[in-house]
Amino acid sequence: MKPLLPLTLLLSFAMPLLAGQDSASPLLGFTKTDADRERKLEARFDSSLRRSDLAPWMKRLSAHAHNIGSPYDRQNAEFIAAQFRSFGLETSIEQFDVLFPTPKIRILELTAPTVFHPLLAEPPVDGDSTSGQTAEVLPVYNAYSADGDVTGQLVYANYGVPKDYEELERHGIDVKGKIVITRYGGSWRGIKPKVAAEHGAVGCIIYSDPKEDGYYNGEVYPKGPFRNENGAQRGSVADMPLYAGDPLTPFVGATKEARRLPLREAATITKIPVLPISYADALPFLRALGGETVPESWRGALPVTYHFGPGPATVHLKLEFNWNIVPAYDVIGMVRGSAAPDEWVIRGNHHDGWVFGASDPISGQIALMEEAKGIGSLLAEGWRPRRTMVYCAWDGEEPGLLGSTEWAEAHAELLKRNAVVYINSDANGRGFLGVGGSHTLERFVNQVAKDVTDPERGVSIYERQRAVQLANSSGEEFRELRGRSGIRLSALGSGSDFTPFIQHLGVASLNLGFGGEDDGGDYHSVYDSYSLYTRFYDTSFVYGITLAQTAGRMMLRMANADILPFSTSNFTEAVDRYLREVTKLADDLRAEADEANQQIDNRTAFLSSDPRLPFIVPKRQDPVPFINFTPLQNAVAALRKSSDAFEQSAGLVRDDAIASSAKTVAEINTLFTTLERGLTLREGLPGRPWYVHEIYAPGRYTGYGVKTLPAVREALELKKWKEAEEQVDVVAGVITGFGRQIDKLTALLDKLR
Amino acid sequence: MKPLLPLTLLLSFAMPLLAGQDSASPLLGFTKTDADRERKLEARFDSSLRRSDLAPWMKRLSAHAHNIGSPYDRQNAEFIAAQFRSFGLETSIEQFDVLFPTPKIRILELTAPTVFHPLLAEPPVDGDSTSGQTAEVLPVYNAYSADGDVTGQLVYANYGVPKDYEELERHGIDVKGKIVITRYGGSWRGIKPKVAAEHGAVGCIIYSDPKEDGYYNGEVYPKGPFRNENGAQRGSVADMPLYAGDPLTPFVGATKEARRLPLREAATITKIPVLPISYADALPFLRALGGETVPESWRGALPVTYHFGPGPATVHLKLEFNWNIVPAYDVIGMVRGSAAPDEWVIRGNHHDGWVFGASDPISGQIALMEEAKGIGSLLAEGWRPRRTMVYCAWDGEEPGLLGSTEWAEAHAELLKRNAVVYINSDANGRGFLGVGGSHTLERFVNQVAKDVTDPERGVSIYERQRAVQLANSSGEEFRELRGRSGIRLSALGSGSDFTPFIQHLGVASLNLGFGGEDDGGDYHSVYDSYSLYTRFYDTSFVYGITLAQTAGRMMLRMANADILPFSTSNFTEAVDRYLREVTKLADDLRAEADEANQQIDNRTAFLSSDPRLPFIVPKRQDPVPFINFTPLQNAVAALRKSSDAFEQSAGLVRDDAIASSAKTVAEINTLFTTLERGLTLREGLPGRPWYVHEIYAPGRYTGYGVKTLPAVREALELKKWKEAEEQVDVVAGVITGFGRQIDKLTALLDKLR
Repeated sequence: MKPLLPLTLLLSFAMPLLAGQDSASPLLGFTKTDADRERKLEARFDSSLRRSDLAPWMKRLSAHAHNIGSPYDRQNAEFIAAQFRSFGLETSIEQFDVLFPTPKIRILELTAPTVFHPLLAEPPVDGDSTSGQTAEVLPVYNAYSADGDVTGQLVYANYGVPKDYEELERHGIDVKGKIVITRYGGSWRGIKPKVAAEHGAVGCIIYSDPKEDGYYNGEVYPKGPFRNENGAQRGSVADMPLYAGDPLTPFVGATKEARRLPLREAATITKIPVLPISYADALPFLRALGGETVPESWRGALPVTYHFGPGPATVHLKLEFNWNIVPAYDVIGMVRGSAAPDEWVIRGNHHDGWVFGASDPISGQIALMEEAKGIGSLLAEGWRPRRTMVYCAWDGEEPGLLGSTEWAEAHAELLKRNAVVYINSDANGRGFLGVGGSHTLERFVNQVAKDVTDPERGVSIYERQRAVQLANSSGEEFRELRGRSGIRLSALGSGSDFTPFIQHLGVASLNLGFGGEDDGGDYHSVYDSYSLYTRFYDTSFVYGITLAQTAGRMMLRMANADILPFSTSNFTEAVDRYLREVTKLADDLRAEADEANQQIDNRTAFLSSDPRLPFIVPKRQDPVPFINFTPLQNAVAALRKSSDAFEQSAGLVRDDAIASSAKTVAEINTLFTTLERGLTLREGLPGRPWYVHEIYAPGRYTGYGVKTLPAVREALELKKWKEAEEQVDVVAGVITGFGRQIDKLTALLDKLR
Repeated sequence: MKPLLPLTLLLSFAMPLLAGQDSASPLLGFTKTDADRERKLEARFDSSLRRSDLAPWMKRLSAHAHNIGSPYDRQNAEFIAAQFRSFGLETSIEQFDVLFPTPKIRILELTAPTVFHPLLAEPPVDGDSTSGQTAEVLPVYNAYSADGDVTGQLVYANYGVPKDYEELERHGIDVKGKIVITRYGGSWRGIKPKVAAEHGAVGCIIYSDPKEDGYYNGEVYPKGPFRNENGAQRGSVADMPLYAGDPLTPFVGATKEARRLPLREAATITKIPVLPISYADALPFLRALGGETVPESWRGALPVTYHFGPGPATVHLKLEFNWNIVPAYDVIGMVRGSAAPDEWVIRGNHHDGWVFGASDPISGQIALMEEAKGIGSLLAEGWRPRRTMVYCAWDGEEPGLLGSTEWAEAHAELLKRNAVVYINSDANGRGFLGVGGSHTLERFVNQVAKDVTDPERGVSIYERQRAVQLANSSGEEFRELRGRSGIRLSALGSGSDFTPFIQHLGVASLNLGFGGEDDGGDYHSVYDSYSLYTRFYDTSFVYGITLAQTAGRMMLRMANADILPFSTSNFTEAVDRYLREVTKLADDLRAEADEANQQIDNRTAFLSSDPRLPFIVPKRQDPVPFINFTPLQNAVAALRKSSDAFEQSAGLVRDDAIASSAKTVAEINTLFTTLERGLTLREGLPGRPWYVHEIYAPGRYTGYGVKTLPAVREALELKKWKEAEEQVDVVAGVITGFGRQIDKLTALLDKLR
């Protein structure tokens, strides 16, 4: 999986309070002496990185299909482990046993008004290194689709998200007993069969419209990198917003002896069968639809008039899967810390791909390997980090973050004690830094970004990221951006291996990569190959090195800092912003309901409707009550005070005090290590206890897309007004508790003045 | 020509000051007694209208191609004249002799990298009444394209408007010596070859992308009403924003003896050859383009990646025309006024079509004929209007408003003295009232709209129009709309026969029609047929009758009112709004220039650019000075005072005073008749003296699209800062003069208190 890195990261309002704001100053968390030493260390780290490693590694790791459960997946894990060992990391392969269905029967046919049998395959293309190796390729399918054999009229449901069904309802269309065809985009794919089933559909097709990543965007493979007519997108459809990882072992590591749910009780498996197809396969289905023409926002780029249906197209969909348990091989390489071995700084990228996966995930994996090699070269000099560094190559990310989640669950207690930070990457490309994560790390990330040079333009990746923000903004937004500095971290939803760390364990996390100049349409297709990557993406692997430099610096600074480089003002700003969003959301929902009801009262809908179409009487909406947000507003106001005091104290810390107060420093670092855990709640979010973070969660109806202050925001979105008000209190309590932790830190920092 | 009626007419801020605001009150401009008589007259008028007339008339008038110069065009004129005579109108056919080129040679070919010869024809389709009559059809072409024989590399220029060439420039593409292919939409078509030539292109192709009116919007003909792959759009490309009418006789009627310019001096003929084509014809040209992928807003709905070029596509375009002088037959039917025969109330619709023209213009023409028949039925009762009524069926509208313009120019002095109002219609369809025109008539139009019943929903066309406005708005806009009442008139640009009246003579004008439920793609194609119209548009002609009722009421009230029903507050509001728009425009241009220059100073463009593409150094922009708008602000403030006084006095007029003060009433009506002339300036607009109206004009670079306060607005848009400031003074002078006319009216109204 590769969460698309948001290009619209906003920049921070926060003003510098701590020392260490630019590259000339000492580093955040380091005394002057240690900062000098650290910078020299980083220079040696940089000079050890070799671009020439990357192409052979990518070629090696993407030479054969290496999905979880495949023979080459294991070989890759062993290859990576051997490399880690050769760099000097204490390395093991940790095995979990996870549910991984593969297709046994895939039948999709248009049975009326004409008969059509789609290809359901991605044929070899000229000049591609691996697409001819058809025997080893997993067929196009959605993992964790239910088995099923269904026939029904077809309905086009756009992206298949809840508001699309509201639109269908406005046109008098009910999908009950029908099969929906949806297009990729607009949400994470797993949302589509889930919402379809909630509305009574019996089957779901997901196709790749050329509007999303096909010819609409650029030339298609092999002429260009975009999705050709036969390219299809594999991918998991497990209900990951409920819980990530092995569907049979929620909350616990899928070890050999773990207690497993019976298959029928695995809540994350879809309720209806679902199959992804290409646009060549989709076109005859769409052409066979009748009914009204869909609204403009529903139209793709195929040369056809898009209609809602239902019918006359009738579809037969039959799917059966091999519900096998397969081994997941996580490669774990450690470097024990010299001073604080129980403070763990963790780095990860997955190694399994859907097929050959040169871009996703190998482009990120080889950067992680190069980074580990750089650490190894420092170890070879005799250097040791203060804290323990852990390098992880995860298996089974694609079907559902299996390797990372099972590892995080298996070692939950240890990690909750020891994990300082988890730094993730996934597919990596060419262009600009995209970075999201815990806002207590925002200032730290900005400092690192100022110290890494962009290989294309020779300025820092910070400057280049800022330039692209400015270039893509105008008017008010431009003036606001210009008036402040800093890269703003995006909030993390899901879609890669950070999820079990930040959202299930409460470990402060980051997710980063480069992109924006490497758009293409190979995602989860057989055409994600070494050939495509080296023709169109980071062709000379310069951004592979830049990722190693960026993540490597993050690891080294986190591992070596005298005081862990967390800060609080950007987090406070972020929470304040989220709070303003949810209060505005409540107001907007109230205005919308009011507006909709007035349109009914004034017969606006009737009088403006076309009498040649059936008139569907709009449903009256319940009026939206005023929600009491004051507990949260007061909690955030108090947090701001705590944060201001913290930042002030942090700015007054003296280097000699650090050197002479080992116990206080240790206490501070222990508190920092578990700081993010203070944002979690043991009971978890309403209806999904696996997710315990009260600030960030993947959306129940967006999937990868984040919901901030999720307990409150989703209650509002689902029009559960009472729950929203209750959750305001709950989140206010969490934020108040977090403020108290900060106060403790401030008190300790004051001892170092 | 059919200017698309804007669905987004905004509603008026103006509060009622005069009596006669709703249908229960007396009519604006009528004493109570006369209002009663008028309402009864209108009821008899309504009851005389027969829906059954319309289908046979449409069938008759659209049975053969009836473009200007064709045999059937003359037969249609004679048929309409015979009808007018049978209704009791004094009818004549007035002939003008106008330049009307038709194609002699049309060669378009793709010569490299492959060879392709487009069809350049619209084949017959099954079930269509007339598309098989290929012998009588004018081939697809653009009237007033220059002759030419050119070969060059092809460049895709989107809509071909100035900002598209700025985009090309940002990508380092110069069209000098090249042929551009543009798509229909985004401006009036005549702008495309004009701007292409200004940038040095040697030829221009205009194609109908399916995004605009093809399958993207609905099923294509004959399955649905949208443009099929072979449908193409004929149309004029004369530089009508310079002057309308016969290119050889600007300012004077094209009578037999008129002095004609030599062809080479006719400034409205294009500088380069231009040809319209279908999307089936366009596809191979677009496929053959290389270069960068175009930005999203440039992409159409063809199944291809859209590239800028230039080349490798190379194109040969050769066009030669028969530059013939042909007769235009205007049918003029008059009913002499009983009391004020020198006050003329004029109504018009054109009768010529590009081919069979069932929708454009026959749907409007038959409504006008039915309206004239209704007037005839009142005449047969012995009734006579107070003022003279003139019904006009124009010829040669399609190539360039020829018939109406030559008539208006030939009778300019008479019309400037006598014309009270010109009321226009053109193609008419199914749905909601669309109406634009002089804002001194806004209150009048609202009152009429409240008195006409929508045939689909049984409420007034006013209520239905308001419902569609509300249904299409949300948020702030919805709340604002809900908070006020009234239909707001759109400002008139060009595209139909109102232009010579309002913009060249300064005659208060209206343009109206129904639409919004009749989208299709037959515009200016051979498929605009009786079959298509009666299958998809106003199939039972109920809106033909509604148009006759609406325009007929306007004519009757204008012809019978005791005091002409003009008012000033809506006009004042409109001018004030336009003034705020132009001051904001100056501020926006200043901010944009500032922003663009800052992006250059900060190297934003360079740092955010993709190094794999050539980097084009952006041009520094001249800073935008502050423009002194105070003369206009003061003039509008004074106008508001004059208008308030006028409305107050108008509200106090007594019926008995009207009855007993014939001389004052006559003076008032004379002043009202020429009121709109007060908004004109003899010298005309900068660089285009034919256009004399200082409030409304077609845009030099939009064509049909209106520019309000054009002298100021276009100077700003063209970055002529000095001219903008000079024109602020000029327009302020005009508005001040207009205010004095209102003061005179107020003084006269005060005699009737």
